[in-house]
Amino acid sequence: MRKVAMVLSGCGFKDGAEITESVSALIALSQLNAEVQCFAPDLVFESVDHLDGERTGSRNIQSESARITRGKIKPLKELSSSSFDAIVFPGGFGAALHLSDWASKGSKCKVMPDIVRVIHEFNDESKPIGACCIAPVLLAKVLGGNEITLTIGNDTETAQEIEKTGALHEDCPVDDYITDRANKIVTTPAYMYDDAEPHKVFEGIQGLMRELVEMA
Amino acid sequence: MRKVAMVLSGCGFKDGAEITESVSALIALSQLNAEVQCFAPDLVFESVDHLDGERTGSRNIQSESARITRGKIKPLKELSSSSFDAIVFPGGFGAALHLSDWASKGSKCKVMPDIVRVIHEFNDESKPIGACCIAPVLLAKVLGGNEITLTIGNDTETAQEIEKTGALHEDCPVDDYITDRANKIVTTPAYMYDDAEPHKVFEGIQGLMRELVEMA
Repeated sequence: MRKVAMVLSGCGFKDGAEITESVSALIALSQLNAEVQCFAPDLVFESVDHLDGERTGSRNIQSESARITRGKIKPLKELSSSSFDAIVFPGGFGAALHLSDWASKGSKCKVMPDIVRVIHEFNDESKPIGACCIAPVLLAKVLGGNEITLTIGNDTETAQEIEKTGALHEDCPVDDYITDRANKIVTTPAYMYDDAEPHKVFEGIQGLMRELVEMA
Repeated sequence: MRKVAMVLSGCGFKDGAEITESVSALIALSQLNAEVQCFAPDLVFESVDHLDGERTGSRNIQSESARITRGKIKPLKELSSSSFDAIVFPGGFGAALHLSDWASKGSKCKVMPDIVRVIHEFNDESKPIGACCIAPVLLAKVLGGNEITLTIGNDTETAQEIEKTGALHEDCPVDDYITDRANKIVTTPAYMYDDAEPHKVFEGIQGLMRELVEMA
């Protein structure tokens, strides 16, 4: 049974982890009989109303992520690659707002130190890394110098920004995924296609997880 | 293409809609090529921290539900059976806290008037109704007098409380569902089995949705 760490960034695509992507990952990994442990930063953020886009006050990233995982989640700082065979980052704007400041800085962003640390740990030990939607930018920023290949779908502007890190971008439809075998990185665009149908997002993520667990 | 209304009660199993159940329903209905419109009450509730169970202040049920639906959701009062072929209620404690007060009153509960109204509308027009987890108690309370058959899994205490409404309870495993053909009601236990594996919950809900769309 493979052990997979999943890193969440809240609960909701505007200010946290994308919910359908996170649940698709949990279902797909459960189908593959993998054991999943979720992690999230124990940090406060400014939440955004998902109806009207207004600021709605402070919330905690780990507490909100716990909504997706039915309470079972550990603080990100406790995540060490030594206990896992692979790691996964679902998407959602939380990856570009909390796990990094890609949302405002693009390729000049800073990535949260614990995220930099765990990406290096898994990569150094040749353990596979999966990322959905906008989360591949974290891998680009941390591992771009290794000329990793990844996808965020077909958004030209984001793809060009990603390539400034040294990473290579490949276009990919929502129900598929891109594998970089040499670097053991698997990515799928998910809701980078904003109007994607839920079952197509699930299909892309299911494919990613199959590949990830196979490589683990 | 079948049109299905889905009623959410927030975002998170402790104070709203169960997230894996809601997303499983969205994926399964998308696989079946059904068109889904989500609804939730435009009402304030006391939110519960999903890490430590503490009260965390007021939130709005519709705004929180919008996290699951990527912002696309209408107020419950706008839901009319005339625009839909079927209706679905995912579970989560929101069904027993907000859509009714089953959590404190059991079979003596009151169900939110708009929920009573829509359940009667769909039932009167012989349009199928699906419910997961604890949400079948809403159907029991509103339609129990018709001797409807439903499941909430194998929890004896809840099953006995349900039967006080006149509804009949049948035990059911997590990956299966119970169909009442005469009354066009389909139910599945989902996270009434607290430690259920996500893919088993998905399987039960997928079966329910297939049956629901077939009957619509």
